Amino acid sequence: MNERIILVCNDDGYQAPGLLALIEAVSPYGKVIAVVPEKSESGKSHSITMTLPLRLNLMYETSHVTLYACSGTPVDSIKLALNKVLTRKPDIVVSGINHGSNSSISVIYSGTMGAVIEACLNGIPAMGFSLLDFSREADFTASKLVVKQMMENIIKHSLPPMVCLNVNIPRVSLHELKGIRLTRQAKGVWKEEFDMRIDPHNKKYYWMTGDFNNFEPNAQDTDEWALANGFASVVPVHADLTAYHAFNELSKWNYEL
Amino acid sequence: MNERIILVCNDDGYQAPGLLALIEAVSPYGKVIAVVPEKSESGKSHSITMTLPLRLNLMYETSHVTLYACSGTPVDSIKLALNKVLTRKPDIVVSGINHGSNSSISVIYSGTMGAVIEACLNGIPAMGFSLLDFSREADFTASKLVVKQMMENIIKHSLPPMVCLNVNIPRVSLHELKGIRLTRQAKGVWKEEFDMRIDPHNKKYYWMTGDFNNFEPNAQDTDEWALANGFASVVPVHADLTAYHAFNELSKWNYEL
Repeated sequence: MNERIILVCNDDGYQAPGLLALIEAVSPYGKVIAVVPEKSESGKSHSITMTLPLRLNLMYETSHVTLYACSGTPVDSIKLALNKVLTRKPDIVVSGINHGSNSSISVIYSGTMGAVIEACLNGIPAMGFSLLDFSREADFTASKLVVKQMMENIIKHSLPPMVCLNVNIPRVSLHELKGIRLTRQAKGVWKEEFDMRIDPHNKKYYWMTGDFNNFEPNAQDTDEWALANGFASVVPVHADLTAYHAFNELSKWNYEL
Repeated sequence: MNERIILVCNDDGYQAPGLLALIEAVSPYGKVIAVVPEKSESGKSHSITMTLPLRLNLMYETSHVTLYACSGTPVDSIKLALNKVLTRKPDIVVSGINHGSNSSISVIYSGTMGAVIEACLNGIPAMGFSLLDFSREADFTASKLVVKQMMENIIKHSLPPMVCLNVNIPRVSLHELKGIRLTRQAKGVWKEEFDMRIDPHNKKYYWMTGDFNNFEPNAQDTDEWALANGFASVVPVHADLTAYHAFNELSKWNYEL
């Protein structure tokens, strides 16, 4: 039997401590090939690079772990990995460990999850991991335990077609972590504030800032509730955007020209 | 009663002919405020700009149509419009008319649809329109008829929560257009090819190219089938990424640490 191949991606770039933590956690399960952005690509969602060519640089190579840096987005990195780096389809794709939450609606802006969804579109079991801590000195001990448990699961069960996983881990120590919960994405939205400033040429510019508004902080079946209560959250994410539940209502519209 | 406010976005930039076609088609229904990227932002999906400030420039203003160009992505444009341009929430958001298809899985890479989904997250009825013609000389006559019919629908019926619409229009003349069909997103994937070249400094670079593979070309309930057979396609898209149908299978996993 061939050795299992695990493709690793992230959106924080090849120097992120979370990447090393993820590689450490998954390396017992197979040969690791990491193809990740060369710099931070946070907030890049499912974007691809259409007007520039891409670069790919080998950064590190041992018999068991290989790391490439890609000049593009996380999704570009997955596409290049599948087409130009790997000689066969990987068995599992993991992305992260992201520095900062990708829970609730943040999943849709996330480059970490962009990579995961791209793998899912290509029929590969895929999971993204995010720790609710932006610090470079973040403690990934609890996160690594969650990664291991989820790796055991995905190897045993695989995943339904067009479904991948968004796993978030609270900022707690290993002994404070209460467990892992299967949840849905909490309903919520980022409420932006734009900090308007004047540049030295007397022109306006805007820094985007904002706060997350959770519309249902008491809903115990949501990722936000799990995380606020010391659990890691697992949200199944689907890569087919069709809103099947809306067909009935939309069939009442008039489509005659 | 206040005049209806229609916020317009796109991902091809403020100079795209498709933008003018969309403004023309929706302007009978209310006051138009367009906030669109200053340059092409194709393939930017739901990405936001996190490491640079944003600029916003007023390009054109009459009593009925106002156009701003934004230095960021389509999603940035919607966020800036809602926070800094409009004095109240718009009644409808439309995006496009995109030069090129956003059918099937292309929806997930689309900046046009990123803007639509962002509006949807903010509780605003929203639709994206794309014409299957990349040419700047594209004929938008049939597209404008589809936009008008869908505007009549959305004004009459609104939309379910967290659902928006992805409308694609085939490259046909007005009399060849067979109608509008409510469809699902066809199962398919882009198969990339990377065109490897050597730069003047003797380093490799890769141009991403690719072809769309439709996994179910004969499925008559899909957007691809509708478009190939002369119909415009309407796919309901949901902004909540939770794969609710996967809970049963995923509840069998082991979440004990």
